[in-house]
Amino acid sequence: MGPGPSNVAPSVLRAMSAPLLGHLDPLFVKMMDEIKTMLRQVFLTKNEMTFPVSGTGSAGMEFCFVNLLEPGDEVVIGVNGVFGGRMVDVAERCGAKVTKVEAPWGRIIEPAQIAEALKGRRPKLVAIVHAETSTGALTPVEEIARLVREAGALMVLDTVTSLGGCPVRLDEWGIDAVYSGTQKCLSCPPGLSPVSLSPRALETATRRKSKVQSWYLDVNLLASYWGQERVYHHTAPISMNYALHEALRVLLEEGLEASWQRHRQVHETFVREMHKLELEPAVAESIRAPMINTVKIPERVDDAKVRQRLYDEFNIEIGAGLGPLKGKVWRVGLMGHGSRVENVELLLKALKQLI
Amino acid sequence: MGPGPSNVAPSVLRAMSAPLLGHLDPLFVKMMDEIKTMLRQVFLTKNEMTFPVSGTGSAGMEFCFVNLLEPGDEVVIGVNGVFGGRMVDVAERCGAKVTKVEAPWGRIIEPAQIAEALKGRRPKLVAIVHAETSTGALTPVEEIARLVREAGALMVLDTVTSLGGCPVRLDEWGIDAVYSGTQKCLSCPPGLSPVSLSPRALETATRRKSKVQSWYLDVNLLASYWGQERVYHHTAPISMNYALHEALRVLLEEGLEASWQRHRQVHETFVREMHKLELEPAVAESIRAPMINTVKIPERVDDAKVRQRLYDEFNIEIGAGLGPLKGKVWRVGLMGHGSRVENVELLLKALKQLI
Repeated sequence: MGPGPSNVAPSVLRAMSAPLLGHLDPLFVKMMDEIKTMLRQVFLTKNEMTFPVSGTGSAGMEFCFVNLLEPGDEVVIGVNGVFGGRMVDVAERCGAKVTKVEAPWGRIIEPAQIAEALKGRRPKLVAIVHAETSTGALTPVEEIARLVREAGALMVLDTVTSLGGCPVRLDEWGIDAVYSGTQKCLSCPPGLSPVSLSPRALETATRRKSKVQSWYLDVNLLASYWGQERVYHHTAPISMNYALHEALRVLLEEGLEASWQRHRQVHETFVREMHKLELEPAVAESIRAPMINTVKIPERVDDAKVRQRLYDEFNIEIGAGLGPLKGKVWRVGLMGHGSRVENVELLLKALKQLI
Repeated sequence: MGPGPSNVAPSVLRAMSAPLLGHLDPLFVKMMDEIKTMLRQVFLTKNEMTFPVSGTGSAGMEFCFVNLLEPGDEVVIGVNGVFGGRMVDVAERCGAKVTKVEAPWGRIIEPAQIAEALKGRRPKLVAIVHAETSTGALTPVEEIARLVREAGALMVLDTVTSLGGCPVRLDEWGIDAVYSGTQKCLSCPPGLSPVSLSPRALETATRRKSKVQSWYLDVNLLASYWGQERVYHHTAPISMNYALHEALRVLLEEGLEASWQRHRQVHETFVREMHKLELEPAVAESIRAPMINTVKIPERVDDAKVRQRLYDEFNIEIGAGLGPLKGKVWRVGLMGHGSRVENVELLLKALKQLI
């Protein structure tokens, strides 16, 4: 019940233990196609260039920036937690000039802030984090994406934690580049990063003047492997793709909207029940991410000791606060396979004895 | 029996299907330490900075170059197949000025060629591929590494295919940076890239003037996660690390030298038996890599048809030739768990019916 990796369905673990296929084996190639199709369904997009990068979520973040940016490009990045800050670092390593739009940790990036940042600027892209795993705040995307497209910029979205656990609508919202992780609401072990590029974003990546600085993440090369040509690029992590294939199947079998609703309901149960222990959410009601719940640590309570006892005596892991929230909040993941009322009950029963 | 991924021991598949742990869980942290210790044993090194990068072998290649190189650096790279060529591409994307030392595909890089390239040059590093997976040639490293160190350069070695299947002696040979893959002679699914940096190489990476262009692969950040501090960097691929842990345990249980010897013996059996079918190795005897066997395709034989029938009728995958060797050779992997006499017999019995 930490901020990820989340627990994984037994069938996903079983899928990983299947014998290896070659990375150009017809059966594996068919599986790649099915993964792409299912990812499009989960991202709600028609983007052809939708596939899992062979690295974890941070590799997906880097994939978006190295492909879209060239030295000297201007970008605007929303920073309201760890992962916004990481995007700034990654973009700067691509030689971009970054304008930060900041909000306190636990708050969201407001459309008005983005509008303000776009005044008199013509950035190549604007990037924000959907659900900030470090704070539990869920920034609404639709209005920001509209502003960004009106300004002629590409909209980049971090959906590492949100995908599968709440609405993420790429095409409807007009998102140009997106990355996610497998180990949150997709309930698949970490090791792959689903990404998607709109035709506009793909054109930016293919028409750039300089080579992409990463060979491993260059979409111009990856497109030939994950596309129809099947040109060997690197050896895909076969077993991780088995796992993702099964995790996506499980998610779509439940139904995307049903999964969103389950995450919402379990989250609401958690909030309701924590009040009974006089615990309070750290994030305002209207902007709470349902899958990553930050809880204010009461002043009388020893943060580290409670987490240690939860782990030792109850076999439950929850996350510590990061940065300015260190010692002030706990981060409780209710993600994917782990988002269920019995987990809420288990944790709160344990906390009742410990705080 | 292709050029990798190789078959995997059942216990490695089972290890992957264990429930997920968090990436900072004490049990997982202990496993990380054990993986580092076992990797040092397999690389025959004392290098502290020895760990698996969270990507496939090509990510490990990129790890070495992005950390060691800054724009304008001079490098010398041996090119005698696909992977030498890939190193050139990766180094150029780091802004390096590359001098290529070339040999025909199927031949090795000779020490005299490296000595010649070092005359009047002072490159920052020299890189070669140990076992070229695209050709089956095994370049002896010891003499080249000596020349490189005498010239004051860093020696970088690709051991993706060689590690575990033939001697790789980092400290004795004086290798400064090395990367490997899990899916060849380590017999672990693809998804991680074991790397090791000598203290000299690590100093180069930590004292550089510019930031490493990849955030994901920056050893200055990774050192804090894989070192004693355990600072969160990215979410490690948990299940893949379970698999690597078990694969290394299996290898060291057999014994490193015993594994080298087995690969050598199975290779010799394969060569001896293929002669009976009037098949010939494509690489000269003294420079054959025992784990990746290239076989000349007889003129009368239809390359694609034989490979297709092997796959359809005998459930055996072998690799096609690449680049200038396309249509001219087959590539037969006898790697790790798959390096065994019964596999040789199975393949040759099938080929006997097909050619």
